[in-house]
Amino acid sequence: MSILIKNGTLIYGENLEIIKADLFIEENKITKIGKGLKESADVVIDANGKIVSPGFINTHTHLAMTLFRGVADDLELMEWLQKHIWPREAKLKASDVYWGSLLGALEMIKTGTTTFVDMYFFMDETAKAVKESGLRAYLSHGMIELGDKEKGEKEIMEAFRVMEFVEKLGLERINFLFGPHAPYTCSPEFLKRVRELADKYKKMITIHVSETKTEVENIKAQYGKSPVELLDEIGFLKDDVIIAHGVWLNERDIEIIAKSGATIAHNPASNMKLASGVMPLRELLKEGANVSLATDGTASNNNLDMLEEMKLAALLHKVHILDPTIADASTVFKMATQNGAKALKLNAGVIREGALADLIIIDFNKPHLRPIHNVISHIVYSANGSDVETTIVDGKILMLDREVLSFDEERVLDKAQEVAEDLLSR
Amino acid sequence: MSILIKNGTLIYGENLEIIKADLFIEENKITKIGKGLKESADVVIDANGKIVSPGFINTHTHLAMTLFRGVADDLELMEWLQKHIWPREAKLKASDVYWGSLLGALEMIKTGTTTFVDMYFFMDETAKAVKESGLRAYLSHGMIELGDKEKGEKEIMEAFRVMEFVEKLGLERINFLFGPHAPYTCSPEFLKRVRELADKYKKMITIHVSETKTEVENIKAQYGKSPVELLDEIGFLKDDVIIAHGVWLNERDIEIIAKSGATIAHNPASNMKLASGVMPLRELLKEGANVSLATDGTASNNNLDMLEEMKLAALLHKVHILDPTIADASTVFKMATQNGAKALKLNAGVIREGALADLIIIDFNKPHLRPIHNVISHIVYSANGSDVETTIVDGKILMLDREVLSFDEERVLDKAQEVAEDLLSR
Repeated sequence: MSILIKNGTLIYGENLEIIKADLFIEENKITKIGKGLKESADVVIDANGKIVSPGFINTHTHLAMTLFRGVADDLELMEWLQKHIWPREAKLKASDVYWGSLLGALEMIKTGTTTFVDMYFFMDETAKAVKESGLRAYLSHGMIELGDKEKGEKEIMEAFRVMEFVEKLGLERINFLFGPHAPYTCSPEFLKRVRELADKYKKMITIHVSETKTEVENIKAQYGKSPVELLDEIGFLKDDVIIAHGVWLNERDIEIIAKSGATIAHNPASNMKLASGVMPLRELLKEGANVSLATDGTASNNNLDMLEEMKLAALLHKVHILDPTIADASTVFKMATQNGAKALKLNAGVIREGALADLIIIDFNKPHLRPIHNVISHIVYSANGSDVETTIVDGKILMLDREVLSFDEERVLDKAQEVAEDLLSR
Repeated sequence: MSILIKNGTLIYGENLEIIKADLFIEENKITKIGKGLKESADVVIDANGKIVSPGFINTHTHLAMTLFRGVADDLELMEWLQKHIWPREAKLKASDVYWGSLLGALEMIKTGTTTFVDMYFFMDETAKAVKESGLRAYLSHGMIELGDKEKGEKEIMEAFRVMEFVEKLGLERINFLFGPHAPYTCSPEFLKRVRELADKYKKMITIHVSETKTEVENIKAQYGKSPVELLDEIGFLKDDVIIAHGVWLNERDIEIIAKSGATIAHNPASNMKLASGVMPLRELLKEGANVSLATDGTASNNNLDMLEEMKLAALLHKVHILDPTIADASTVFKMATQNGAKALKLNAGVIREGALADLIIIDFNKPHLRPIHNVISHIVYSANGSDVETTIVDGKILMLDREVLSFDEERVLDKAQEVAEDLLSR
């Protein structure tokens, strides 16, 4: 399969150069970029007046939580979790997760996300949905051990089951990673064990760390150190770890994270909506940490729109430290693309020859994207997910001119509604 | 002209009740709401599975600044103003303002705004654009006097010219109001004069107040009181005043504003992007002040999307005071609709019999708006302007199924691009 994208305006390379050029895709790679390419291709797309951008990499979500979108908002975190989210999650069935994941996959394709990192339950069902959808994914079973050895073993067995399921799919674009939930739900012994397993099986790890102030205070009371220090002490943090949130970090934590090479997946919408706090972006960047962008689950966002997330990130940090120069458009665009790729050691997140063909075409022929002075500014500050016209992952067109090709959109919308209503009535 | 909207899900009345009903529009009013209406109508719209919402009321913008969208971002306020905005504004021609306004009007129609309040230059040109577009508007010439009597007189003459121009149009939906720029650019004597003129001609007033910390400090150094106290002392504040921003307010300021009946037009995106600060929403609401919502100009936003603005407002205040219960979905929805109508004493901002037919239809048949558990939550936290399918103002359909009917969209996009490029090369 080959695709020729003609006459587009490309966001080229790591430095986000804006160039007019054609782009040729063979199999799953971008193989040529240049003016007036004459390659014959299976599909030719005219991108005249349109922007060809790397697809977005959403480094932290819980895809099947689309089923809980709008179920509970504007509540204290513990009330939200204990009264609304956890009781409903306890009633989840495998098939719910399948349909919730498919709905989420549909939303991601329609808003230009090409790769995501997930932590949830019944992850083989999410893997099935990802397989059908055509997206690239890193999937983890969320392990909650609570210092209970037997529970810990069961969680690891489930992780292995998912790992095996994913490996049997034999698709490079669907990957397994370990997902211990958080230092406040997993003991240091358990986390050490997970670290050893990740080393042994050469898998990545993702974990929630320091999302709320209370959680950090509790860990400090229990262990006499911060969650990050605790993780550091047991040798948990390496460059294969994606830390979700990292809101309440002290100076020492930031140094540790930067030195370890671990990535912080920043979730501005969720941190704002749940009133968790503001991640210290300036300090993390200053220390050289890798910061990527993410939406978190739709119960606390409530969408998966990475374009919206970029604007939120830029605006939040500016007002938080009263400095309009921080989190400039290019910085947050990189967080949403190449920094996510760096976290995953993925040959994507940029438009260049040899990179994976994970890219999107954005339609700028709209009033809110005119006049065109600055492409990156428009994408970060004025566009939204609905402006994405075409989504290509691994060299395959998943959406063309807003029409999803990989599966039946209407059926997913209807079925997800049905499943959600059934779930809420249980 | 009559319109029958069948089978819609209505956001009904001040309390935002969600009801399934038909809605009948005669001339410029909603005349009937009920199940199975049999009225014969010039146009019948099937809104099955769709949401019928009051249109949004954007209470502070500078419409023609669409021409400067993305020209300068991520800069210190004074650098932004002095090096980028003001030198360009100095080169503006009347026809630039016309095309910039038309581009802005197009964007508002496409994102569900039905009424807006504007302050800028060459406002007769904006009035022309508003006339063509079909929107409802309150237009002011931004008067900057700087304590210079002669300059003050010229500004008032220009305001009168605009007032006369607007009144000659003879359209109820296009209104004039006075627009003294700010207490730091207009002397107390000048502001007193404007107050008298507003009383005499029975016009409203809009003014920037306490947007930045520096501005408040300067006024305090000069007058020994806050900008709000200064305005109060000269009898400026009444319930016909719309204060843009109100970011840096002390306790006394908040009491004064609430007591006066003046409205604060809140601009979260602009206040965040320019790092101006966070308006004290909790305190203003507690004191009973009327707070409406606004986008400000697109040079500091960078769009006019009130759906995005609602989410920003909700999220900003939650994280700022670390309380997820503040700025709940209904509160910000009201800010974007009925509170704006209250500010303008306009019989709109709600769906009810007898109200002006200023309403929109939102398409919920999209992955990011499914499953449907809570309509207001979806509108505030998950929707964006592109989900607006139909826009009706003053009983006229301006957009149907995303197609703008009142003027030629393509022509405006092209012309605005041309005008902006010419402006930047001057």
